[in-house]
Amino acid sequence: MAIKIACGQLEIISGRPDLNTQNILRMISRARNEDVDLLLLPELAVPGYLVGDLWEQSDFLKDCETFGQQIIGASQGITVVFGNVAVDWRRKNRDGHVRKYNAAFVARDGKLIPTGQGLDFVAKTMLPSYRQFDDPRYFSGQETLMKDRRISLKNGWGPVPVTIQGKEYRIGILICEDGWTENYPVSVPALLKQDGAEILCNISSSPFTLEKNQKRHRIFGQQAKDLHLPLVYCNQTGVQNTGKNIFAFDGQSCVYGPDGMVKAAAPMFEEKLLIFSWDRENEKIRARSAEDEMIVTEDDEAEIVYRTIRYGTEQFLKQTGIRRMVLGASGGIDSAVAAALFTDILGPQQVLLVNMPSRYNSELTKNLAQQLAENLKCCYTIVPINESVSNTVEQLYTPIHNYSSNRDFKVELNGLIYENIQARDRGSRILAGFSAAFKGGVSCNANKAEIAVGYGTFYGDLIGLFCPLGDLWKYQVYALGRYINEKVFKTEVIPEKIFSIRPSAELSEEQTVGTGGDPLIYEYHDYLLRSFVENWDKASPAEIIRHYMNHSLEKFLGCVDGTVARIFPSHKAFCQDLEYWYSLFTGLAVAKRIQAPPILSLSRRAFGTDFRESQMTSYFSTEYKVMKEKLLLQERLF
Amino acid sequence: MAIKIACGQLEIISGRPDLNTQNILRMISRARNEDVDLLLLPELAVPGYLVGDLWEQSDFLKDCETFGQQIIGASQGITVVFGNVAVDWRRKNRDGHVRKYNAAFVARDGKLIPTGQGLDFVAKTMLPSYRQFDDPRYFSGQETLMKDRRISLKNGWGPVPVTIQGKEYRIGILICEDGWTENYPVSVPALLKQDGAEILCNISSSPFTLEKNQKRHRIFGQQAKDLHLPLVYCNQTGVQNTGKNIFAFDGQSCVYGPDGMVKAAAPMFEEKLLIFSWDRENEKIRARSAEDEMIVTEDDEAEIVYRTIRYGTEQFLKQTGIRRMVLGASGGIDSAVAAALFTDILGPQQVLLVNMPSRYNSELTKNLAQQLAENLKCCYTIVPINESVSNTVEQLYTPIHNYSSNRDFKVELNGLIYENIQARDRGSRILAGFSAAFKGGVSCNANKAEIAVGYGTFYGDLIGLFCPLGDLWKYQVYALGRYINEKVFKTEVIPEKIFSIRPSAELSEEQTVGTGGDPLIYEYHDYLLRSFVENWDKASPAEIIRHYMNHSLEKFLGCVDGTVARIFPSHKAFCQDLEYWYSLFTGLAVAKRIQAPPILSLSRRAFGTDFRESQMTSYFSTEYKVMKEKLLLQERLF
Repeated sequence: MAIKIACGQLEIISGRPDLNTQNILRMISRARNEDVDLLLLPELAVPGYLVGDLWEQSDFLKDCETFGQQIIGASQGITVVFGNVAVDWRRKNRDGHVRKYNAAFVARDGKLIPTGQGLDFVAKTMLPSYRQFDDPRYFSGQETLMKDRRISLKNGWGPVPVTIQGKEYRIGILICEDGWTENYPVSVPALLKQDGAEILCNISSSPFTLEKNQKRHRIFGQQAKDLHLPLVYCNQTGVQNTGKNIFAFDGQSCVYGPDGMVKAAAPMFEEKLLIFSWDRENEKIRARSAEDEMIVTEDDEAEIVYRTIRYGTEQFLKQTGIRRMVLGASGGIDSAVAAALFTDILGPQQVLLVNMPSRYNSELTKNLAQQLAENLKCCYTIVPINESVSNTVEQLYTPIHNYSSNRDFKVELNGLIYENIQARDRGSRILAGFSAAFKGGVSCNANKAEIAVGYGTFYGDLIGLFCPLGDLWKYQVYALGRYINEKVFKTEVIPEKIFSIRPSAELSEEQTVGTGGDPLIYEYHDYLLRSFVENWDKASPAEIIRHYMNHSLEKFLGCVDGTVARIFPSHKAFCQDLEYWYSLFTGLAVAKRIQAPPILSLSRRAFGTDFRESQMTSYFSTEYKVMKEKLLLQERLF
Repeated sequence: MAIKIACGQLEIISGRPDLNTQNILRMISRARNEDVDLLLLPELAVPGYLVGDLWEQSDFLKDCETFGQQIIGASQGITVVFGNVAVDWRRKNRDGHVRKYNAAFVARDGKLIPTGQGLDFVAKTMLPSYRQFDDPRYFSGQETLMKDRRISLKNGWGPVPVTIQGKEYRIGILICEDGWTENYPVSVPALLKQDGAEILCNISSSPFTLEKNQKRHRIFGQQAKDLHLPLVYCNQTGVQNTGKNIFAFDGQSCVYGPDGMVKAAAPMFEEKLLIFSWDRENEKIRARSAEDEMIVTEDDEAEIVYRTIRYGTEQFLKQTGIRRMVLGASGGIDSAVAAALFTDILGPQQVLLVNMPSRYNSELTKNLAQQLAENLKCCYTIVPINESVSNTVEQLYTPIHNYSSNRDFKVELNGLIYENIQARDRGSRILAGFSAAFKGGVSCNANKAEIAVGYGTFYGDLIGLFCPLGDLWKYQVYALGRYINEKVFKTEVIPEKIFSIRPSAELSEEQTVGTGGDPLIYEYHDYLLRSFVENWDKASPAEIIRHYMNHSLEKFLGCVDGTVARIFPSHKAFCQDLEYWYSLFTGLAVAKRIQAPPILSLSRRAFGTDFRESQMTSYFSTEYKVMKEKLLLQERLF
């Protein structure tokens, strides 16, 4: 006989136990109406996951407990597994804060079901402390719980016995990371199986990351297969942030059969009650409809990126109460893609594009900006900055009185200063002004390569509510632009010419379109910088030069063969370039990132909380220096 | 017979193993020349402590290992205990990165001394993950090390046997947090004593925090006394940062006798080879000079705050290569204190004060700004912003074309928009311009109360290289101002009037000096906000209202009795005020902090990495709402 199981793929709002509980109660009602026997709800469904140090406010914890009681009270006739914070008020964590667990509670008929050994809940065992995750900062693990309660570690990971339709089922409960067994010394799923679990239920709070779902299908599928158990994965949707990073939670809850195959799956970024039946005797799992058997593939990266950015942006704007956006429109690809994105989400009349020409802006880019606005049907205006920039320059020449020498003097301005005055005039004077007056947020259109090396001006083009494209390399921005034209608007909203002109900041004679462009050579630097940031074992200048000497650099970086030789006429030029960008990446760019807007996270390593860094002097290791010397000596000799 | 022990209180530079190693080698030479038998060097002395995710770059780790070998090689005739990262290249941490330990190595005569059980080093056991600390993100602990090497946990915390002058001494090595035994389930010092340690040596990387040293003397003194062992504490100096926070490491290395009393101590913020003798037989510890017996007291908070800010600022400027500073001088206390600070550090000719009057600035404050510059003998200039602000307003009225309706429209500006235009004009146009032209950093003069509620303008007064006063409440800024006049300059450099006028932003008719001032009532809000931020168990609106109802609020907050009744005419006014500021604190202010400059940390909780937060909607708990309703009902009824 089959029982009905469901994943309640809910949208969770961090820090709002009141709203989340309302949402949970609605989901329980729906499930009860559908005769669901066992309903899973996500990890920390009551408080939300990314709430920062709010975990250190006891009243917030008490509030979450109170709402937890409401959920328990609503479990008449249905077994509900839900995530909430569990507090042991009599004990303290190592930092002196009250002892907390990231816990799963199991409720039925208005009461908690004991999870074994006299415990009321299951605690997360594996507490991630990498990327944006700070679990050990707040939570103790299942091991600590057992030590506290003097339970033998041998008995602590047993499944929870639950009676459904008169029969006992032994449910192995995992919380998120507990299932990611790759590098952990113990495997919680294996321990649960060993102790008699008949089904594994993983409740998660897992944000979208490019390629993570494929990895999950591989690891979780293998887990189900190896242990010959069905495995249910219940994830949440919604958008939560850590201050510097915004994360889109993709849902995609699903169930794997004992053969490791997905039997039913919920969509990305949508709330869903995913119902399926499980017949323990004949090991059959059946989705309710054929539609529920589809899983999302990531064959088209641009598509998955667009869906994630669109959802993340839409939700983040909703949370911050922003209904309009203001963008500087330069005629370049980054601002064009961002403009199209916001137009798609908010509608064209809610998007204001501002072109702010100085004497260095070409007719070409000015026309492209206007064309873009026209294609998107946005709001558009032109505000020249020449006069204001001249006025600023003049004011900076105001005599300064030195009270030590009792003499007056004047400062001197050079080209770079002049460039930055233009950028700040656009950002902090005009765009920030329009932001308030148009009642919209400013979009920071920096891409990941620019953010990596600090190619952008403090309080100039680096201002904004957030960076929707800040986790995309330049090549990904181009691909996204193509996707937007072809699949989103299905017409050339981003003028073709924008794809083909060489990117340029147009801040000086040398940088105008036609005469020059960005100093970043994206077909190489995108990939070089990526290796510094995204490689799990971060690449170093020493590693880069080793590969360069072994002619394996393009393969290592993943860029097109021949690129390196084409760009660099000599070893010396190669080393100079490497040192220049690495110094910026670890130098001034760090200072800029500290004050940069939040970044919408997509990759497995976005700048922000996900990539922690200190302002330090740029450093090249002894090994690097030795290899470089060897290389340059070679060049001088031959 | 007595042996000579020394603490090498070194200045450590994060991420610079090359420079740190040079410094360490010099210190070893000096100690050898002084016939020191046992030299202690700080935790992670080779790489530095706060290097962020650079721990994930294998080449950096290898480099640190190489430098560690140099230090071992330099230990001829002297026993050296030094902190470095230890790597187990064959194993992985839980996140897939190579296994690392925050380790202490013991070297003599060019070789490592085994630390027992076949191990080469002692690993830190207690890995802090509170405040700015992220140890578990990077390091495994002593327990993991022992499990890996199949050593019984019973034998793992033994002291290291070291032969000095022909006799064996058993040295119990602790790394920083291992000694802070308050809330940990096991006490490493007690385990070491139990296994026969004759002396405890704690090597640390411990930044200054107000009141921490008193606590350390209490805890460490008690530890030495309870275990009846001498305890040596070797800390570092220097300045390291976590991006958002700058920390001054205060040194203050010292030795506690078995009676718990300090026998010798090094000064704050200075490199020092602190030498003392220890006679094991008669338990005598003797400082080399009377001067070395002095410890720093914190009787005068302003003094200790000034010393820390001065040191932290000086070192941070040195590290970032900044030799000049630019400040907006408003005639208020915050900018005056900052101006005096930078003048004291850099000299008056390196400090540029810019007064930027609009139509709302009073003659009084303009004169005060000028007087300040004159008193400090700084560079000074006046740049009016009226014209530029008018021009900006005019430009924001440029017609905008709506390509959907094909009509033009104009935005509308209100008072608040106009205020922020002024603030941004000053910050991003003038000060940032002078920053480049004068080749100096901009000082962000925001104090902690302003940062807490976001009282400041994005890209306006919130710009800057860093916030030297960002961890001080307004009352602390005033105290610092007094201290600067009385003890630093010993003359009234900050004009007396600046202390007595009511603080005001002077951005509108309502806010000019005389007619009005800041909406923050510092004698109450300083303390209210402090309870939200610095209370270890963070205060909540519910807790505040509870205390208010029990007439215990002033006592709870630490402000003057009678303040609350004086300020609020009714319960309703009290609740409105509480909700207004708590909503800002947890709302818009979070967004501002995400993009704010780094803060020099002083308190036990500074905004930044030390206080992690997400942008969420402001939330008031059920309990708060119930209590408020009760309170307001009471008021309506009586």
